[in-house]
Amino acid sequence: MGVNSNRVDNFETIKIQSEIPMFQSPLEIHKVRLPPQRTTLQKLRHRLSEIFFPDDPFHGFKNQTWVMKLLLALQYLFPIFQWGPEYSFRLFRSDIVSGLTIASLAIPQGISYAKLANLPPIIGLYSSFVPALIYSVLGSSRHLGVGPVSIASLVMGSMLSESVSYNQDPILYLKLAFTATFFAGLFQSSLGVLRLGFVIDFLSKATLVGFMAGAAIIVSLQQLKGLLGIIHFTNKMQILPVLVSVFKQRDEWSWQTILLGFSFLVFLLITRHISLKRPKLFWISAAAPLTSVILSTILVFSMRNKIHKIAIIGELPKGLNPPSSNMLYFNGPYLALAIKTGLVTGILSLTEGIAVGRTFASLRNYQVDGNKEMMAIGLMNIAGSCSSCYVTTGSFSRSAVNYNAGAQTAVSNIIMASAVLVTLLFLMPLFYYTPNVVLAAIIITAVIGLIDYRAAYKLWKVDKLDFTACLCSFFGVLFISVPLGLAIAVAISVFKILLHVSRPNTMVLGNIPGTPIFHNLNQYKEALRIPSFIILAVESPIYFANATYLQERILRWVREEEECVIANNGSSLKCMILDMTAVTGIDTSGIDTLCELRRRLEQKSLQLVLANPIGNVMEKLHESNILESFGMKGVYLSVGEAVADISSSWKAQP
Amino acid sequence: MGVNSNRVDNFETIKIQSEIPMFQSPLEIHKVRLPPQRTTLQKLRHRLSEIFFPDDPFHGFKNQTWVMKLLLALQYLFPIFQWGPEYSFRLFRSDIVSGLTIASLAIPQGISYAKLANLPPIIGLYSSFVPALIYSVLGSSRHLGVGPVSIASLVMGSMLSESVSYNQDPILYLKLAFTATFFAGLFQSSLGVLRLGFVIDFLSKATLVGFMAGAAIIVSLQQLKGLLGIIHFTNKMQILPVLVSVFKQRDEWSWQTILLGFSFLVFLLITRHISLKRPKLFWISAAAPLTSVILSTILVFSMRNKIHKIAIIGELPKGLNPPSSNMLYFNGPYLALAIKTGLVTGILSLTEGIAVGRTFASLRNYQVDGNKEMMAIGLMNIAGSCSSCYVTTGSFSRSAVNYNAGAQTAVSNIIMASAVLVTLLFLMPLFYYTPNVVLAAIIITAVIGLIDYRAAYKLWKVDKLDFTACLCSFFGVLFISVPLGLAIAVAISVFKILLHVSRPNTMVLGNIPGTPIFHNLNQYKEALRIPSFIILAVESPIYFANATYLQERILRWVREEEECVIANNGSSLKCMILDMTAVTGIDTSGIDTLCELRRRLEQKSLQLVLANPIGNVMEKLHESNILESFGMKGVYLSVGEAVADISSSWKAQP
Repeated sequence: MGVNSNRVDNFETIKIQSEIPMFQSPLEIHKVRLPPQRTTLQKLRHRLSEIFFPDDPFHGFKNQTWVMKLLLALQYLFPIFQWGPEYSFRLFRSDIVSGLTIASLAIPQGISYAKLANLPPIIGLYSSFVPALIYSVLGSSRHLGVGPVSIASLVMGSMLSESVSYNQDPILYLKLAFTATFFAGLFQSSLGVLRLGFVIDFLSKATLVGFMAGAAIIVSLQQLKGLLGIIHFTNKMQILPVLVSVFKQRDEWSWQTILLGFSFLVFLLITRHISLKRPKLFWISAAAPLTSVILSTILVFSMRNKIHKIAIIGELPKGLNPPSSNMLYFNGPYLALAIKTGLVTGILSLTEGIAVGRTFASLRNYQVDGNKEMMAIGLMNIAGSCSSCYVTTGSFSRSAVNYNAGAQTAVSNIIMASAVLVTLLFLMPLFYYTPNVVLAAIIITAVIGLIDYRAAYKLWKVDKLDFTACLCSFFGVLFISVPLGLAIAVAISVFKILLHVSRPNTMVLGNIPGTPIFHNLNQYKEALRIPSFIILAVESPIYFANATYLQERILRWVREEEECVIANNGSSLKCMILDMTAVTGIDTSGIDTLCELRRRLEQKSLQLVLANPIGNVMEKLHESNILESFGMKGVYLSVGEAVADISSSWKAQP
Repeated sequence: MGVNSNRVDNFETIKIQSEIPMFQSPLEIHKVRLPPQRTTLQKLRHRLSEIFFPDDPFHGFKNQTWVMKLLLALQYLFPIFQWGPEYSFRLFRSDIVSGLTIASLAIPQGISYAKLANLPPIIGLYSSFVPALIYSVLGSSRHLGVGPVSIASLVMGSMLSESVSYNQDPILYLKLAFTATFFAGLFQSSLGVLRLGFVIDFLSKATLVGFMAGAAIIVSLQQLKGLLGIIHFTNKMQILPVLVSVFKQRDEWSWQTILLGFSFLVFLLITRHISLKRPKLFWISAAAPLTSVILSTILVFSMRNKIHKIAIIGELPKGLNPPSSNMLYFNGPYLALAIKTGLVTGILSLTEGIAVGRTFASLRNYQVDGNKEMMAIGLMNIAGSCSSCYVTTGSFSRSAVNYNAGAQTAVSNIIMASAVLVTLLFLMPLFYYTPNVVLAAIIITAVIGLIDYRAAYKLWKVDKLDFTACLCSFFGVLFISVPLGLAIAVAISVFKILLHVSRPNTMVLGNIPGTPIFHNLNQYKEALRIPSFIILAVESPIYFANATYLQERILRWVREEEECVIANNGSSLKCMILDMTAVTGIDTSGIDTLCELRRRLEQKSLQLVLANPIGNVMEKLHESNILESFGMKGVYLSVGEAVADISSSWKAQP
């Protein structure tokens, strides 16, 4: 520390003898310290570990033998080794109940969501099988129910359909869907491996609320095709063309379909409402989709000779997931589309999966490691893309049912996968007569919960700018397009940050009588100005984005303060104290601004002193040789000490 | 204030009787106040005025009569009315000297820079005439020398030449150049009118240092064509193709050109060096370009029958700027290119103009209003685009000469424009024999000053991340392309902000013995931990971009602190104090994080209290009904008061 103490020689402890009016106790002026000196490499290492390993994932590895370390690494990579050894029959009993419950939801949901992505229904069932098995080995959440989800299905369907039609070129469409899934998985797992999980944080809750609500409306409108029995429907997603198409094709509306559809929709909504009111009756809404499918299939089957106007699913292939790695598409004109779709669906499904995992982990007080989850979800999608699955993630509806049904471990996903396996192997012909309209009703019931008007109201109440972001993403999705709505939402979030950074708060502080505390004059009416001083707090790092603004704003404070002093015949300003407590960083532009500010204030015969600069700001000031120019009396530990010391020095030299 | 006092009922003043170990004086616990209640509209108004009118430009208008207000508005829009009435012969004498001095620089520079933009040399002279007149009426800087600048010329030349060749289609090229100038002006003046001047702040000094150096090298390399006398030169700008082209065309090198060029280059560099060493001799480097042009023209003229290998300017049209509003190009395939070029050159020239204006204003202690300057520069370019000028702005070299030559007002620009007018009307034939190689030497001498290795070294010393940004923009310009290098530079600046925001600092605080001050344990070795407490400071707003990170990081601090307590057999943790002084904002995600954190800490039997939340954070906490759940003892005015109060309450109830 020899060097260090050498470096702060300028800021020696100064004892003040004279009595300071505001502070009863004799006051000692303390040094402002530089942080311990570190080499560039040490600083870089510290910074990188804060960026990439904030949760210190390897803290359990310290002071362990090599064998233990290996075991811990294995448990880290495959959480199944963590809970597997302690697995008991009691846990299995709970998992089997919850596994079968989510299977009854997963089968109709799988078929419906695949239709949402313009994919054949069987792909939806495949997607509930392989990914669930992979996740149960790699995933760290105990309650996540894995499978296709509505938002990602919608986005994939809408992005791919803009360029390729499934009806015209089904093979190409399938290829692109699998390739997009592959890239989604690659993107997700590399975010996890590179520990860049914070990327998904930029989808703020506010923008997601708007985005989800918009997407839910878009999805519901698309279901009007099925619900009304329309055959020639628009390919577009936006609200206006869809509504136009619905009313233009009024002659295609079929009253049988409408009757059937709305009956089941009402049934599903009532069961949903019951389960929402009484969470113990969660199984009512969980069982309702399968019940609807069975009932409607029997109904259509029994009247198959009387009504032909109701569209049915038709033939579905029997058997397990066929391999699809040969269908991945790595060159050709649509590669960019596949990559783009993969990125967008990847980030959306990741956001949902992580949020759902965290929600249920928090309810049961265990931790879900975001980066590990990303790797699990990513690998699950890469494996899925090679086994005829499309994008899957942790689904909110399945996880909620799983949790309520008492799931204890990821074994419930294995049970669900087994039930789907049985379905795939033996029960496919039973879905022949299932009417499409019931699938539409299931989708609408599922997505209606995404419209969270309560959250939107809370946003309005607490933060108007958040609410604006929410509205923009909502209308962006509704009127422009789903990926563009998402882009707008992210852009607004980033813009909000940049605005906050380039227009930071500054405020005038006053002393709270009887304390050494200085606070915002505007917030604390009892706070008092100190004659001859202007005390300003800057509430942001000072850097290129706000350096000019801060300089202008601070000079304006001085001007206003001077006008105020003249108006009240007060004693003229002699010193400005800049409270740097909240200045969390400074760059070269910021340092230039401080120097310029000091020069300008000197011309007005105002002394500039800094109070409480934090460690890295002190370091930067020292490295740029600014500290010397501020001198030993230019930097204080607190505003109180600065005021006391400077005013006593004025008394000493009148 | 009835409502307000009602709102803070929960935070009543509590007197503490028992003795607190650390603080000698009896301590009073103070209320944390909500800021005065304002309506949404008031808040919005305040926020908008902080964003758009931080400098309060209309403060002079208050309490004035209507006539005065009108006069002030006129002076605001046309600064010439401000200084015009006080203009004197003494000022005029200074301005005439400086005006003639910059004219002697402006004429060769204008011709050279126009060649840099692949435009006919005469355009460069036109561009020193009309814009200078406009600026002298609208501009608020007294020292800005207006005209074409090297960076904007280079960028315009490189961007337009990628799609259109001047040699193949001169009319189209000219049209695009004027149109780009028009859009540059439109963009600049709208930034000024909309008071969005902070956009240019995002070109940080660090990235500009790298960008300028890269551009200077690119420009110098381009001059090898002229300096070596090469006829067939590459159209590309990047360093590698240019060097390849230089050495491939070795047979075109002409020793006469090389000899002439390097002699003048050495002459120019020496004069530059002299003026740098002795600022009083500024006129040596100011007069050198014109001297070189005259000398070389005489030389070539006198030997015109002996050597033919030296390329000369040739015929230049005589006469004033022809109108060019009919050449603006508002539809067609190249419109996007023209707009893009306009935006990039507009923002670059604006950045240079504002920075130069501010630099010289600061030397003479007057203010330059950024937004007003943007309007002036923008209108000057719009007018320029209609009178055969290309992009102009405040040039550093001209302004420096202007300042050193003693310019007092914008009249020096009028004098320069008059000198250019005389040249345009009568002296054009004199430039017939001026060799291109001298122009190349002038350009190199001008841009070499843009390589500011001292600034780069300072960046390296003070801020490694800034230095990285500088390097990236430097190599981006050198190896990729000029506009892409600029885009990379801006992206890095924005990324730096986002990184700072998404990975904020947190630190553990300890008490500085004998004071009520709490500081970073790492920075202040004398600071002491308080038993049973963990005191954390968060140094950033808490919002969506860092909410998850902060929660994880804070829980890790608690875990590490608990391990430390166990290792030292200390008393177990009972309370966490979150110092919110530097938390300058909070959004809905941040509030959720606080609640979640509180819940998690309660499971560990740790109490969470907040110290010193600032006004708008208090407001948000109140609006989201969180304050009630924290209760009357959950929010304190300072860390010291929190420690004192909580530890005394533990003593009271053991």
